[in-house]
Amino acid sequence: MSEAAQATLSRDEAFARIRLLRSPNIGPVSYNQLLRRFGTASAALEALPDLAARGGAPYRPAPPERIEREIAALRKVGGRYLFHDSADYPVLLAELDSPPPILTVRGDTALLQRPSIAVVGARNASAAAVKLSRDFATALAGQGYAVISGLARGIDAAAHRGALAGMGDGGGTVGVIASGIDVSYPPENVELQEQVATEGLLIAEMPPGTEPLARHFPHRNRIIAGLATGTLVVEAAPKSGSLITARLAAEAGREVMAIPGSPLDSRSHGCNQLIRDGAILVQRPEDVVELLVGFTGQPRSTFREHAPEYGAGAEDEPVDVAGLLTLAPVAVDELIRQSGASAGAVQMALLELELAGRLVRHAAGRVSLAG
Amino acid sequence: MSEAAQATLSRDEAFARIRLLRSPNIGPVSYNQLLRRFGTASAALEALPDLAARGGAPYRPAPPERIEREIAALRKVGGRYLFHDSADYPVLLAELDSPPPILTVRGDTALLQRPSIAVVGARNASAAAVKLSRDFATALAGQGYAVISGLARGIDAAAHRGALAGMGDGGGTVGVIASGIDVSYPPENVELQEQVATEGLLIAEMPPGTEPLARHFPHRNRIIAGLATGTLVVEAAPKSGSLITARLAAEAGREVMAIPGSPLDSRSHGCNQLIRDGAILVQRPEDVVELLVGFTGQPRSTFREHAPEYGAGAEDEPVDVAGLLTLAPVAVDELIRQSGASAGAVQMALLELELAGRLVRHAAGRVSLAG
Repeated sequence: MSEAAQATLSRDEAFARIRLLRSPNIGPVSYNQLLRRFGTASAALEALPDLAARGGAPYRPAPPERIEREIAALRKVGGRYLFHDSADYPVLLAELDSPPPILTVRGDTALLQRPSIAVVGARNASAAAVKLSRDFATALAGQGYAVISGLARGIDAAAHRGALAGMGDGGGTVGVIASGIDVSYPPENVELQEQVATEGLLIAEMPPGTEPLARHFPHRNRIIAGLATGTLVVEAAPKSGSLITARLAAEAGREVMAIPGSPLDSRSHGCNQLIRDGAILVQRPEDVVELLVGFTGQPRSTFREHAPEYGAGAEDEPVDVAGLLTLAPVAVDELIRQSGASAGAVQMALLELELAGRLVRHAAGRVSLAG
Repeated sequence: MSEAAQATLSRDEAFARIRLLRSPNIGPVSYNQLLRRFGTASAALEALPDLAARGGAPYRPAPPERIEREIAALRKVGGRYLFHDSADYPVLLAELDSPPPILTVRGDTALLQRPSIAVVGARNASAAAVKLSRDFATALAGQGYAVISGLARGIDAAAHRGALAGMGDGGGTVGVIASGIDVSYPPENVELQEQVATEGLLIAEMPPGTEPLARHFPHRNRIIAGLATGTLVVEAAPKSGSLITARLAAEAGREVMAIPGSPLDSRSHGCNQLIRDGAILVQRPEDVVELLVGFTGQPRSTFREHAPEYGAGAEDEPVDVAGLLTLAPVAVDELIRQSGASAGAVQMALLELELAGRLVRHAAGRVSLAG
């Protein structure tokens, strides 16, 4: 547990928070709604079975023994928890729509206070792009930047290595992984991951012990984009995960940058298209610094896809939202309009359905019935 | 002489126009002012000595024998004149601030009615860029575009060759040269220039017989940019002539496009910087077509450097402009402000100084005393 969280959070409440977040059908949205509604995770855990019953299903929170095992596993690798309201929870990440309520970390959280740049790209990158990734990271870490990446092969690994080689003036590197913090992936990055954890900072959202599954990677990408003032795509195929990270950065109102390449090299097409779509072309680390130093919260990059926003009231009228839902995802604000109910009431109804396992949350604030 | 010009222009007046433009200290600006003021070139030629005397120097227009030799040289290579007010004078070129009053041409002026794209770049281009230039030109000429370039080595030659290989649907290629139309340069492009003249269109602003001098190239670049709806820079060093062409295109309100390359290849830096400065990144010929088909006179490219504009009145009060001038170039509109006189009066005074050989005209509408 972080020092700041320990100062304000009792050991029992910290335990309850972890247990609440690990309970069935609880995601960041429902976790936060429950915490707001019941004041503490302990109170929310007590209320959960009744709440779920109104959604039409029996409910069992995560067993306490599992949480005890998780905490022991985290301690074993020298990790600790970072709660969304602790002082060293990263400020930029907290700006996201529903930031991860609990992170596990190893290493130096002071890096989270540094100016930050996400460097991402293809796993099967060209030699030239690997060199660019390393060189940009070395220069930026040397100028005090936290270079954030995903500890994948290719561009990611080169960014971490470059930052580790060049770190100075408070700069360094932050690795965000899709597995639990005590799991290494891919095999060739085992040592690099350990080095990031000891000389930089390692972050995982999933509980210790979690294997890296495909469905976890979008969450990791969102944290990478959310931690950084800007995301630099070094080399990426069209429709790749790196472009999703770029889109998430844009959605979060951050800068999106890309390094161009010759149209004759198909591996350049993703970045070139990003630039056509409004990302800022960068040629040199100085171009990145120039952009980020002047960042005022209004990106110069015009690459953007806005997620629909929806109100966050918290009222009490019950409303039958299930009747409006189908298997096809629909925006929550559309549901609010169609139901005629308040945003808070619709969200509470959705929460009840979610706890009952009857709701699936999709990207961009959309929901559907579970199939 | 063009058919349209022949229809409206007597043989004597056409001769007088050519003679007027070839006379000492007459450029496009003074040529047009004289034509506006005196109605015909014949009348202007008669008035010139008196006008020049007011500037403080004796004056002799170009000798008629020289013009006769020029016309004979042009006929010999099958060329003809294109006057600024003839029906087949290119419409886009006529939109420039002071378009060339007389061009010499060989070949198919119907190409000047086609949608048009200037393709320019370095003489010592990379093999990849030469291939891109050729491929873009082939595709665009095949879709009915007139591909305009400067018949230099490297990117230019590849653009002409590609267009000649691919021409279809009314498309083809236009070569604009800095020498007289009967002079070939560089030596390795002699055959290509002849092919452009016979299968496409060859244009020169300088009189037949003129050797290509360094100071003529900016004028050629201005015609290339002025003829086209958009200028595509394929590969160019920073501060190169191709970037000047791009700037001239932007000043004329046309699209500016560039093909990116890896920052590790220094030959890409000019184009990458152009894109950073607002030029549109293009990867494929389709990107060019998409941009130009939708062109409404408002470029999507934000790459731009505006030339100061100045009024074009034509009044008669004499004004002592020489006293305001030094060897340092100054904007004509600054002179107008400082003199307190009308724009027309200042321009007439400048014209008199120019005829007397005491004025030098610089880029962006600036003037200075001759050293």
